[in-house]
Amino acid sequence: MIVCDFSSGRPDPESFPVAELVGAATRRLTAEGSDLVQYPDPQGYAPLRRLAAERFEEREGVGLDPDSFLLGTGSTQPLALLSEALASPGDAIITEEFSYTGALSLFRRYGLETVGVATDEQGLRLDALEETLDRLDADGRPAKFVYAIPTYQNPTGAILPLERREGLLDLVRRRGVPLVEDNCYADLHFEAERPPASIRALPGGEDVIYVASWSKILGPGARLGYVSAGTELIERLMSLKSDAGTSNLAAMIVTEFMLQHRREHTAELCRVLKRKRDILVDSLEEQLGDLCSWSLPSGGMFLWVKLPEEIDNVALARAAEQEGVLYHPGRNFDSGERDVPYLRLAFGFPSDEALRRGTEHLARAIRAAIPAGAVG
Amino acid sequence: MIVCDFSSGRPDPESFPVAELVGAATRRLTAEGSDLVQYPDPQGYAPLRRLAAERFEEREGVGLDPDSFLLGTGSTQPLALLSEALASPGDAIITEEFSYTGALSLFRRYGLETVGVATDEQGLRLDALEETLDRLDADGRPAKFVYAIPTYQNPTGAILPLERREGLLDLVRRRGVPLVEDNCYADLHFEAERPPASIRALPGGEDVIYVASWSKILGPGARLGYVSAGTELIERLMSLKSDAGTSNLAAMIVTEFMLQHRREHTAELCRVLKRKRDILVDSLEEQLGDLCSWSLPSGGMFLWVKLPEEIDNVALARAAEQEGVLYHPGRNFDSGERDVPYLRLAFGFPSDEALRRGTEHLARAIRAAIPAGAVG
Repeated sequence: MIVCDFSSGRPDPESFPVAELVGAATRRLTAEGSDLVQYPDPQGYAPLRRLAAERFEEREGVGLDPDSFLLGTGSTQPLALLSEALASPGDAIITEEFSYTGALSLFRRYGLETVGVATDEQGLRLDALEETLDRLDADGRPAKFVYAIPTYQNPTGAILPLERREGLLDLVRRRGVPLVEDNCYADLHFEAERPPASIRALPGGEDVIYVASWSKILGPGARLGYVSAGTELIERLMSLKSDAGTSNLAAMIVTEFMLQHRREHTAELCRVLKRKRDILVDSLEEQLGDLCSWSLPSGGMFLWVKLPEEIDNVALARAAEQEGVLYHPGRNFDSGERDVPYLRLAFGFPSDEALRRGTEHLARAIRAAIPAGAVG
Repeated sequence: MIVCDFSSGRPDPESFPVAELVGAATRRLTAEGSDLVQYPDPQGYAPLRRLAAERFEEREGVGLDPDSFLLGTGSTQPLALLSEALASPGDAIITEEFSYTGALSLFRRYGLETVGVATDEQGLRLDALEETLDRLDADGRPAKFVYAIPTYQNPTGAILPLERREGLLDLVRRRGVPLVEDNCYADLHFEAERPPASIRALPGGEDVIYVASWSKILGPGARLGYVSAGTELIERLMSLKSDAGTSNLAAMIVTEFMLQHRREHTAELCRVLKRKRDILVDSLEEQLGDLCSWSLPSGGMFLWVKLPEEIDNVALARAAEQEGVLYHPGRNFDSGERDVPYLRLAFGFPSDEALRRGTEHLARAIRAAIPAGAVG
């Protein structure tokens, strides 16, 4: 029996806006439903591209051209297309040391080597990045792009400070390496203080390839994401996008929903996520304060838990299964696929009670997975 | 100004079931909307896979396992995944001499050579297929798969007779070549007499790879199609499918719609398509009876028009543009990209009046594109 599902990053089902989504579907399909006899615009439903541009401008104060956007099936498909457009099998690309498991497996599926760059509690370390770029250049296999999640990083929750964002932008521009900025969590704030500007929005950020989605503020079941980039790259991505267009049925409904309810629903979701983060942190403190440490994210959906170094991850996986606790182990996020003593807890989906009970069960599993000799 | 858009295969917008789709969205999203916080099942929304199996069984009398289905973005994405799974760049694959332009360009995008097999008014010629298989074997580059549309073929409208279906199945089984059967139009009948069984449904057809979609009986804007195949191939396709799942938002609504309205809406669509086919054929007879000939399809969405051999296709494209008539030229359907004297008229989308006026304008364009010396 599953006590708590801490696995993938998903919003809260209890506060899912069913009535608002039904209303949006009714209005937009009544007005435009018969357009579904048409194939979608190859760049994706234009009103949703305009909305993606508005979402960016509202948060970042910088206007983007709706025609610089290509919609896709979640942000996963845009990342897949970028893997194919920017690199070839055998090439190296750079990610944060710990990064989004979905992106890492995607890059590897395209035959790319994911080279991790050391991070600290603020995110990517620029000295380490420069060293890695140098090393790859010296090896005759320069990095084909840098993939980074500067805001509410997945899995660590880190926020890259403004000066590092500026430094990162300066570095990739000097080195001529494309930067893919994944900003999927950027609207999920728990605190009044907001993160620094998106790197795409910084002066000189025009060539940054910007990826985001609607999955984290509505739900990944809609499968609607996007990339914004220069004309030439968008055309190349379109030539690789072999699906005759992204669903207009999904896009129509999400557009109407977002036009009417985006701000209010995002605010509600942030309140829920903050409450869940607090419950999880309190439960962890109570249950595992003596054994583990964790990030305290000010936004996003994830807590990154550091386990005792001596943990037996195989025993932990077995014990967690018996305890009915689902999560992604650290290994899934490691750029080098090392079996690191971490695990990621996604706290958007479980109920408050599941978070509390899940932490108890997780704590039992962790304690059971510490070799006898290593205890006390 | 566009007088008539004969280009891509789309259903009639006037009879698009707006109210029924809104009702379906309301019911299913009210019941299950909050499941959209989840990622889709990697094989696609299970109720829609069950429905695809039922659709097949109802028409063919043969049961398929819903777990043999993989949903995708239209039938285009399944065809793209098959291109990657079954062949490699530089490989040869076999299609009917004239075939679906979307599939041909997709195969070429994956670096495949599309080798056409001669057809007659009944479709694929088995003697020509066997010769082509032999020739490719002798060249040391055996065909990696055969792609065929046996029912209401696109663009010709041909129906492959039962004995040829049996012969085709026997041939590909003896030669060990995978057969991809595209059955997208199979529910669009204009006559009481029904086409023969799907090749997948014939005895010994278990290994046929079956592709279809909901695009032609609802609309391609929904972007929902599927492939049914053996376990091993489905797993391989899933490993290549880099989008974290096909939209459950679209799938939920289409499932509910199809459960309630599929038979009635398909019947209505068939009535409309038959009426439009008759209008188009009458108009062609009146306007171009002295110059052109065409198929008389008993189902599907297309009329394949043979132009005078001496036609100047460049002049025709220019004249048609001036006349406000959109269509796909024969070249787009030619397996060898030859500039053949044909054009395809898709008659589902234009209104009755647009069909009549469009044919007049098309006739003027065709007459203008016959070199002066060649006329009378």
